[in-house]
Amino acid sequence: MTIKHALPVTRAQDFAAWYQAVIAEADMAEDSGVRGCMVIRPWGWGIWERMQRLLDDQIKATGHENCYFPLFIPLSYFEKEAEHVEGFAKEMAVVTHHRLKAVNGKLVVDPEARLEEPLVVRPTSETVIGAAFSRWVQSWRDLPVLINQWANVVRWEMRTRMFLRTAEFLWQEGHTAHATEAEAREETLRMLEVYRRFAEEAVAMPVIAGEKPENERFPGAVATYSIEAMMQDGKALQAGTSHFLGTTFSKAQNIRFQSADGQLELAQTTSWGVSTRMVGGLIMTHGDDDGLRVPPRLAPWQVVIVPMLRDGPEDAAVLDYCRTLAAELQAQSAFGEPLRATVDARPAKASNKRWAWVKKGAPLIVEVGPRDMAGGNVSVIRRDRLYGEGGKLASAVRPRADFVAEAASLLEEIQAGLFAEAKARLDAGIRRDVGDFAGLEAAFADSETMPGWVEVEWCKPTGDALDKVDQRLKALKLTLRNVDMNAAPATGSCIFTGAPAVERVLVGRSY
Amino acid sequence: MTIKHALPVTRAQDFAAWYQAVIAEADMAEDSGVRGCMVIRPWGWGIWERMQRLLDDQIKATGHENCYFPLFIPLSYFEKEAEHVEGFAKEMAVVTHHRLKAVNGKLVVDPEARLEEPLVVRPTSETVIGAAFSRWVQSWRDLPVLINQWANVVRWEMRTRMFLRTAEFLWQEGHTAHATEAEAREETLRMLEVYRRFAEEAVAMPVIAGEKPENERFPGAVATYSIEAMMQDGKALQAGTSHFLGTTFSKAQNIRFQSADGQLELAQTTSWGVSTRMVGGLIMTHGDDDGLRVPPRLAPWQVVIVPMLRDGPEDAAVLDYCRTLAAELQAQSAFGEPLRATVDARPAKASNKRWAWVKKGAPLIVEVGPRDMAGGNVSVIRRDRLYGEGGKLASAVRPRADFVAEAASLLEEIQAGLFAEAKARLDAGIRRDVGDFAGLEAAFADSETMPGWVEVEWCKPTGDALDKVDQRLKALKLTLRNVDMNAAPATGSCIFTGAPAVERVLVGRSY
Repeated sequence: MTIKHALPVTRAQDFAAWYQAVIAEADMAEDSGVRGCMVIRPWGWGIWERMQRLLDDQIKATGHENCYFPLFIPLSYFEKEAEHVEGFAKEMAVVTHHRLKAVNGKLVVDPEARLEEPLVVRPTSETVIGAAFSRWVQSWRDLPVLINQWANVVRWEMRTRMFLRTAEFLWQEGHTAHATEAEAREETLRMLEVYRRFAEEAVAMPVIAGEKPENERFPGAVATYSIEAMMQDGKALQAGTSHFLGTTFSKAQNIRFQSADGQLELAQTTSWGVSTRMVGGLIMTHGDDDGLRVPPRLAPWQVVIVPMLRDGPEDAAVLDYCRTLAAELQAQSAFGEPLRATVDARPAKASNKRWAWVKKGAPLIVEVGPRDMAGGNVSVIRRDRLYGEGGKLASAVRPRADFVAEAASLLEEIQAGLFAEAKARLDAGIRRDVGDFAGLEAAFADSETMPGWVEVEWCKPTGDALDKVDQRLKALKLTLRNVDMNAAPATGSCIFTGAPAVERVLVGRSY
Repeated sequence: MTIKHALPVTRAQDFAAWYQAVIAEADMAEDSGVRGCMVIRPWGWGIWERMQRLLDDQIKATGHENCYFPLFIPLSYFEKEAEHVEGFAKEMAVVTHHRLKAVNGKLVVDPEARLEEPLVVRPTSETVIGAAFSRWVQSWRDLPVLINQWANVVRWEMRTRMFLRTAEFLWQEGHTAHATEAEAREETLRMLEVYRRFAEEAVAMPVIAGEKPENERFPGAVATYSIEAMMQDGKALQAGTSHFLGTTFSKAQNIRFQSADGQLELAQTTSWGVSTRMVGGLIMTHGDDDGLRVPPRLAPWQVVIVPMLRDGPEDAAVLDYCRTLAAELQAQSAFGEPLRATVDARPAKASNKRWAWVKKGAPLIVEVGPRDMAGGNVSVIRRDRLYGEGGKLASAVRPRADFVAEAASLLEEIQAGLFAEAKARLDAGIRRDVGDFAGLEAAFADSETMPGWVEVEWCKPTGDALDKVDQRLKALKLTLRNVDMNAAPATGSCIFTGAPAVERVLVGRSY
């Protein structure tokens, strides 16, 4: 029996169209009418809010404090750090005026309200935060400075795609200053590890944590690390980055301190960020042809109860049964927090509501009709095991008390199952048997199969030699991803130059 | 004995300078170097974050969901609602270009990257959210729409003052659409009540909730309600507003729905907001000449433990004693949440740390030296009762276990005490005995005493008649605040016109 899936397009048919369909059908986000900006709807926002909460807890647990810095950065701040400008200067939103006026009933920009110095809408905040650090840091006693902000940033992207690349996006950006390079490098890796754990434990999205090659570094960074996740089409998504900035920004912004032995020294800084792009990663990791599947830790509602109402006299009793059930579930603890359960009592057909929650990916959907109520039962649909034998929707009748008692462990099982499924796909999707460039070409020649990534040995070229490698890869629509911290040591020769290899680097298509 | 207070200026000497001193000395915020924008530092941010958490809980408990809408609003959106434009058009940040370029080593705005349509940085989001509502609302079944967003907004203020009036500020803006006027009006008042309770219960800041007069309405609103708080200098601070917008925005943005009986109707909308201005209100309500006093519900740290270290061999044991104490306190529950306690182990003199926390206004400061440790004691300073008889710093030695057991109730007592103190001031600060305009002039003639507010009877004039009242008040630097929901009925004549009065309105100086 062929299953008639809930989405109008399947992953196999057209992955890009499927991605847009999930976002629309799961009520995650929509076009705003403002170029490159989206409206994040309650279900999408609820997931981001959960991500924020869990990641923020980890950022605080590692000793960081939240602050807030201005949205606008004066143009001159960008001139101080040449390499940073080069990387960002090109596409930024610039505020040039501070007033509108009405002319013949039309609103226009008032030419008399031109700003003396244009203000850039922050694309990232190293410059303005560096200026604050230079005020805050005088002595070694003031270090380390460990701060973070949750903010919106704008990069004027030409081609946008919801959650993955939008003109305005939301993120956290951590910024720290340290007395020594060793401490700053340790911080950079600490936050990379916080991101790895967050991606794997909260988002159930397995990642490869490693250092980016030189050409993929953040503008101004000495070293950039990333977590890279494999989407279901085999492409890589850079889902978080952590940068060791050395003294690049402390030189530009004059972040100096008197050391314990009286010397004036430059601070060593880091920055690191995770954005709403993570929501796109979640969709492309866990979505299926029926919509989204939200990992229970992040689901705004972990259990959704749908009463089967028939506009009849027993409706009130069914609703009451559902509400009591929700209260019983809310008294349970899942993942160390109160379980999040709700009753969907909106005026709509129960089957429409069921499918709406399937598409949104609520982990457990519980249907309750008069018959369930009479038997003291509930009918439970697991979003991660939607179809049973013969392709029929799998709904299990369970005694209500039993379901309440087992709901938390079901959610934990679903969380673990989603991770295991994605981990198996990642592991199977990385080839390590390619020994030369021809082999790499061959690996990506067949566009019919999921290409995944290839881990190859290389000599870690820099400068022009690296540019050459980059161009050869670009011709195959490939990019260097990162060097897995846990990669095996190199034993052979560089597939690009034939020189002795020094490490293994991941190559793949990417978002 | 004259107390030597911790701030360089007292409230009595110069209230405005005192306000800036609290912000600086309590590490709340600082100038950013970007015109009209501030940096909110960790202690200030921590308080705002607590406000967000508690208010967000209430917004959700009343059925609203969070979303996120774009930072940028196309200029043309503002043209749709004339009255709204009139109110906001004047001072807004306008993005006109999307690229910078380097010319002779200087960065300039690239003239070729001019936007076809300028983008306004949102001053508020009725227009762009109204456009979304018009997509979301088709049938009565889609109503009500109950949403909220936490966001930054920009209004190009000429004179700025930290937290009270900044170019960029942070807020939540709720937006709802309803099928009937009655429902929308009920929503408007429901959120006003949420704000009143939040201000009084979380911020410990008593307020008057009531309707603003016509001339103080939000641009486009049919009715605007506010909560007004009295600062220690007697001035009013509008600390939150809730607007019934009628069909103003649904007409402009075409928010129409098919009613149950098949008619096409305009939705009735509301909006309501509370901003970082509330932090300014907290400072001017609870600050004293030694700095801030943070209500325990909002304090990032409710108990700060300062070890008295002497670079001696017993330091490790003292630190250990402090950390165990912190853990014991964290296991307690205050206001239904885990108690927030920390050890300040930074390398600085204990007395400097004590005074830093006094200035920041941590509710309980606990000092632990070798002698306290030896006796199994702690020395407790209550920030709300800093000085004892003779003006000496009041520090009470308590057995450690007793302090742990009583900490939560001490915090509750401090919270209640701060509210009671402010409530007594508000009650004493409103005069209701002024029967004519000359009396009003006299009430505010003496600038030496705290003028407070005067509740007067008036005939609720509109249009030109109201403008005239407004101008007479302006000459006295006074404004109409609001009409207290709980005011006594009018019994006499209007102090402005002599006509029969219909209600009582509050008049005062304001921020």
